[in-house]
Amino acid sequence: MPPPVDPRALEHCAQQIALAGRELGALGWTPATSSNFSMRLDATHAAVTRSGRDKGRLGANDILVVGLAGRVVGSDATPSAETALHVQVYRRFPAAGAVLHTHSRQQTVASRLFARAGVVRFEGWELQKAIAGTRSHEGVLELPVFPNSQDMADLERAVDGWLDAGKPLHGYLIDGHGIYAWGRDMPEARRHLEAFDFLLGCEMDLLRLEERRP
Amino acid sequence: MPPPVDPRALEHCAQQIALAGRELGALGWTPATSSNFSMRLDATHAAVTRSGRDKGRLGANDILVVGLAGRVVGSDATPSAETALHVQVYRRFPAAGAVLHTHSRQQTVASRLFARAGVVRFEGWELQKAIAGTRSHEGVLELPVFPNSQDMADLERAVDGWLDAGKPLHGYLIDGHGIYAWGRDMPEARRHLEAFDFLLGCEMDLLRLEERRP
Amino acid sequence: MPPPVDPRALEHCAQQIALAGRELGALGWTPATSSNFSMRLDATHAAVTRSGRDKGRLGANDILVVGLAGRVVGSDATPSAETALHVQVYRRFPAAGAVLHTHSRQQTVASRLFARAGVVRFEGWELQKAIAGTRSHEGVLELPVFPNSQDMADLERAVDGWLDAGKPLHGYLIDGHGIYAWGRDMPEARRHLEAFDFLLGCEMDLLRLEERRP
Amino acid sequence: MPPPVDPRALEHCAQQIALAGRELGALGWTPATSSNFSMRLDATHAAVTRSGRDKGRLGANDILVVGLAGRVVGSDATPSAETALHVQVYRRFPAAGAVLHTHSRQQTVASRLFARAGVVRFEGWELQKAIAGTRSHEGVLELPVFPNSQDMADLERAVDGWLDAGKPLHGYLIDGHGIYAWGRDMPEARRHLEAFDFLLGCEMDLLRLEERRP
Repeated sequence: MPPPVDPRALEHCAQQIALAGRELGALGWTPATSSNFSMRLDATHAAVTRSGRDKGRLGANDILVVGLAGRVVGSDATPSAETALHVQVYRRFPAAGAVLHTHSRQQTVASRLFARAGVVRFEGWELQKAIAGTRSHEGVLELPVFPNSQDMADLERAVDGWLDAGKPLHGYLIDGHGIYAWGRDMPEARRHLEAFDFLLGCEMDLLRLEERRP
Repeated sequence: MPPPVDPRALEHCAQQIALAGRELGALGWTPATSSNFSMRLDATHAAVTRSGRDKGRLGANDILVVGLAGRVVGSDATPSAETALHVQVYRRFPAAGAVLHTHSRQQTVASRLFARAGVVRFEGWELQKAIAGTRSHEGVLELPVFPNSQDMADLERAVDGWLDAGKPLHGYLIDGHGIYAWGRDMPEARRHLEAFDFLLGCEMDLLRLEERRP
Repeated sequence: MPPPVDPRALEHCAQQIALAGRELGALGWTPATSSNFSMRLDATHAAVTRSGRDKGRLGANDILVVGLAGRVVGSDATPSAETALHVQVYRRFPAAGAVLHTHSRQQTVASRLFARAGVVRFEGWELQKAIAGTRSHEGVLELPVFPNSQDMADLERAVDGWLDAGKPLHGYLIDGHGIYAWGRDMPEARRHLEAFDFLLGCEMDLLRLEERRP
Repeated sequence: MPPPVDPRALEHCAQQIALAGRELGALGWTPATSSNFSMRLDATHAAVTRSGRDKGRLGANDILVVGLAGRVVGSDATPSAETALHVQVYRRFPAAGAVLHTHSRQQTVASRLFARAGVVRFEGWELQKAIAGTRSHEGVLELPVFPNSQDMADLERAVDGWLDAGKPLHGYLIDGHGIYAWGRDMPEARRHLEAFDFLLGCEMDLLRLEERRP
């Protein structure tokens, strides 16, 4: 039985996810078959990548349809355990249309480096304006770092805790693991992911150099 | 009403700008739809990229014609706010034919690192000779760093102040933001931009290593 | 006389090895004609790259058939001296189907940096799960570093010593030299190699930054 | 009047030089139209790149024929000032068939970092074996660093001084400038250049990390 979604919407999402996979894979952000990507299909479904595939070479069979509680529909295949974190974003952010989870080296290193502080605070970077709703380099943009866990419920609770405290959230790091970023559509999700990766790289370069500042 | 410029000149500039965008984008110098590029069309007009486009995938519709005071002609579209800085270069340097504004990570990190000093001084690098008019590695090449502002008039004043003091200017950094570089045509602007990026990378590598010099 | 192996198996392995060579070469992991790759052909033979070839441009003539004692069969050509280390893996790990030996800069630098300790201990990285049999980021994954020698028998003894002590082995570094990694087939060997390279890069980045941890 | 050399040899050299330019340019080793390449044509002539061209896009017109004293033959074009250093290699090393001069960032930074010591000493790296005649990682491979000068005669004297002292020479750095490397043919020159670049990168990484060695 095919999943109860518009087949053209599914086809369109699968193509955009495969393209994102090829381009992010070529940047080395999906090492060793890690990472996963998703897009919202409609009010109650999302398309998400299967576990363990090479994200640089995704085909139509590597995309599953899930309900927003995280259960696969129309297939016996197993989705990634991390599907729970993707659907959490769609539930909590009704405008979110695409979620990207990657593991570039600098995302991963930053997640360890800032784990004790629990947050990365970006300030004074023009590229903060790449995050939707940010209009100046003068404010502070926060990217939280949550402790890693093999139990997705722990991670869901950490995300809920941040949001329930009323703080803005555009993405998050998981300690030793990688980043989640999202947007209203795939181009905005890509722009947010790229901006966070760039800003993390800049922050760490500056940490290395700061004591030699002329 | 089409803009009052030679359509072949506009077509030619649009192609060169799109090519520069693809090549600089592939280097990662235009993260998250940032950066903008322009070329002089004639004594009173320039072609400049629209705001918010992916600079690696520019099409003919992504280029606007502006007068040298920065107003769009022949279109209702909004040019980048930073258009003001492009046309300032064309006004103050009659020989300038192309202006490139990019945000590579090392341009951005250097802009923060050297902001307090207000200038990067290159000395002893053979590649200083890539800047037009420089004939030896022995002189000092200065690249100023101006404070960032969301008000372009502040940045214009900083550039004017430097030039009115009679100091040579081949490009400049904006703190936390990126670089502007230009040349008599697109190849020279590319060569200048590439040389500054290379020299900034070298200076920062040397800062990291200097205390371990054998 | 052709080697006593299934010609289709040999052809299939040669293609997979050439593809791995092109892709790993493009990453800069096989500098200056270094590195070698192999695949198991059957219970008593393996296909291995010839010495001194550019690993990014391997042709059918650049693959030799060897017995599991390391002697070439069906050809007068000389295999790489390091063939001895490839066949040792096939003898000691009956499930191993592919062995990759590369020299990326970070593999090489890590091999020097951790030589005195004799081992790299990975802990707290989600990507440890890319190594077959690892289910959590919470355990410790060990990658030993053996002293370099131009006598392959010295290296074989070091590997045997580690295994005879009953410790798990998924790959190893050789001091100042590079890495060996393997898997049940080429995709798993590639995933293991990529995971070790990524983890080594992360560990070294963290070492550089740790004292500046916020 | 065409140059007095075998036109097929010239054509063959021009193709190899253009290919090297494209591949080294793509690595970022020829920034801002810097760098130059040459090949020996016969006992008394060499083919060398013209000054100021983009080394990633060399055409047939970008190659000049010079005698081994450095004078252009069969053309009115000006060769690179650095032609003097290319022909010096062909005069002093009768077996040399190709000379490559590039400016990768790590070649340039290393040239500054090791200028005071006047030499880089490589020891304990397996990749030293990529240099012709080196059979083990155990010896010391020396790469001298000569002071930069806009007068090529100064640089020629520095090279002659090293050689006249009876020391082996496989390449050299010029302070703040870049590297020269050569080989009996283009593949060997490429292998030597790639090995020196790799080893310089490894040495500098190790310098950065050494005090944190576990």
